[in-house]
Amino acid sequence: MPFAPQRITATCRIESPAAEIEARARALATEQSVEMPLEAIRHDEVMSRIVASVEGIRDLGGGAFEVKLGIAPETTGAEASQLMNMLFGNCSLQPEVSLLDVEFPAGFEKAFPGPRFGIAGLRTLTGAARRPITCTALKPQGAPLEHLAALARTFALAGIDVIKDDHGIANQVYAPFERRVPAVQRAIAEANRETGGRTFYAPTFSGGPRALAEQTRIAKECGVRMALVAPMLIGLPAFVELQVDLDIPVMAHPAFAGAGRIAPPLLLGKLFRLLGADATIFPNHGGRLSYSRATCHAIAAAARDPWLTLRPTLPVPAGGMTIDRVQEMLEGYGPHTMLLIGGGLLSAKEKLLDRAKEFVAAVH
Amino acid sequence: MPFAPQRITATCRIESPAAEIEARARALATEQSVEMPLEAIRHDEVMSRIVASVEGIRDLGGGAFEVKLGIAPETTGAEASQLMNMLFGNCSLQPEVSLLDVEFPAGFEKAFPGPRFGIAGLRTLTGAARRPITCTALKPQGAPLEHLAALARTFALAGIDVIKDDHGIANQVYAPFERRVPAVQRAIAEANRETGGRTFYAPTFSGGPRALAEQTRIAKECGVRMALVAPMLIGLPAFVELQVDLDIPVMAHPAFAGAGRIAPPLLLGKLFRLLGADATIFPNHGGRLSYSRATCHAIAAAARDPWLTLRPTLPVPAGGMTIDRVQEMLEGYGPHTMLLIGGGLLSAKEKLLDRAKEFVAAVH
Repeated sequence: MPFAPQRITATCRIESPAAEIEARARALATEQSVEMPLEAIRHDEVMSRIVASVEGIRDLGGGAFEVKLGIAPETTGAEASQLMNMLFGNCSLQPEVSLLDVEFPAGFEKAFPGPRFGIAGLRTLTGAARRPITCTALKPQGAPLEHLAALARTFALAGIDVIKDDHGIANQVYAPFERRVPAVQRAIAEANRETGGRTFYAPTFSGGPRALAEQTRIAKECGVRMALVAPMLIGLPAFVELQVDLDIPVMAHPAFAGAGRIAPPLLLGKLFRLLGADATIFPNHGGRLSYSRATCHAIAAAARDPWLTLRPTLPVPAGGMTIDRVQEMLEGYGPHTMLLIGGGLLSAKEKLLDRAKEFVAAVH
Repeated sequence: MPFAPQRITATCRIESPAAEIEARARALATEQSVEMPLEAIRHDEVMSRIVASVEGIRDLGGGAFEVKLGIAPETTGAEASQLMNMLFGNCSLQPEVSLLDVEFPAGFEKAFPGPRFGIAGLRTLTGAARRPITCTALKPQGAPLEHLAALARTFALAGIDVIKDDHGIANQVYAPFERRVPAVQRAIAEANRETGGRTFYAPTFSGGPRALAEQTRIAKECGVRMALVAPMLIGLPAFVELQVDLDIPVMAHPAFAGAGRIAPPLLLGKLFRLLGADATIFPNHGGRLSYSRATCHAIAAAARDPWLTLRPTLPVPAGGMTIDRVQEMLEGYGPHTMLLIGGGLLSAKEKLLDRAKEFVAAVH
């Protein structure tokens, strides 16, 4: 079958005996589109257009095949939840299937917000014209509000560009959003006034639609200019709406996102970018988590390489990083990167200000 | 450490060398709670309460261990997105970790809606006092609206209790929610008047918060009394809010939910129940998808066995089922079950009414 340019191409990996792969690929195409016996379909247009097509099968060796499915863009309803349903809905229940990559026809991306600021917007905001952007995290959850605000002040005095909440600091009773965010924002603003710097706070937005709307209101009221969101925790369609409502740069956090058999460069790179992430955090190789160097660089490429009409998303390698690794990370990822060191600064305890300054100096 | 009854217990499976499992379990407890070096924590309360504890380690053989973590309930913010973050946030990025089960302290569930109707509510609605409830699906997406309405009429004439949208029928241009739902609802109401029956329509709710609010308005306006929702596609916290707003029984669909290393009985059974599913659809063994008989029965048990103060959720085994299997499914799952046959009816083509009546007769 010739490749139809107006279709979405989903590249899957299927484990299957070679003798069965053609039937297995066709079954997947049916499962992911009409989910019914094809012989019972009564409309030619459904058969020719809506049923997903098998566009190619390639033997990957070791009992696995790469299968390209052609999916009609209109089946996605141009909306995040149904897009994910078409790409990886029922087959998420089939352990022999994983989703490797997706190509969209030109223009398809326009139904989605994409990064509203992207790398250039983050550079304008922070004033970091060419160098990597520095980032750290307020931790731990459970600490008194005053402690978090004091930490934020210290980091801002050191000149770190972005101070995000730990992603576990959400809306708990010990530091609820409505008290924490104004207090931390105020502490940073004061430090900025003292130093003439421009440090930004990115608090965690979490919960259901009503909670997110309330957090948006509070954040706007106290002048918050960046946000931290875990798209898979609040849900992809809620993520789309939230960042449009916020209208400030959004950093995507990968919590709950690694659960899938969806290739990390696709989910954390391409799809989070399509849905509007201005920066995307991922576990750097050699840290506490498990991605390989190749996976990390593929995520960075998916986030910031030219793609359709979408602005580039800033890659944020993180997870157990230390100042020792700054040089190596800069060489590996280049300047269009945000370097996030959290616990690695906090472990300096009473020497926190010095350690934070050292981080800033190493990057500048 | 003695087991603290006021903590949430998360049971994980970790693959690790035996010599490292204690350190690995402690690292997981830190990662999932404070995510920073413990020696840099300055508050006793954080150390004693907020840092997750390792409550037990058991060798499962084959290089895997069962690890029980104790998690402070207040870290979840009594809210779905942060609950999932505490249970499986960062460790979703660690392929050697999977989540097997969760126990909540008594009363914790009261922060969540739970099933508002449950099995008893579904029985009252459908009038099926003791027998299993029958269900089928409108398919395929892409078919004209009139075709879907005619299918719905036929199924209603046959006396099937619940007609759900195929989960791929969302809000696409060829049958948008605002036109489809009133039309199908009307077709079913007419058939009900002719037969004196009480068939219900469960349309698919999908998209972001604004789309869901609009769909809720339309559904209420035309008298829809049941809903189909894929919680993992719209996001768990949006699912919680949606079904509270809808205030009608909600069937949960497992699309995009099998992607995780979260045990299916926990996610599709317990967690969907906690968050409000009145019925939970899962791929039955021996169908098109891959769960074992044991997994399926564990899902059914998690959905409907007594648990805290939560109403039972109706199990809905599905996915390639046929009338031939009705007897076996009834014997296996018992009467508190919804039997869902979709494509297996549609394949009867012009004999659809007869096949649907046969399904109803086999169950009654």
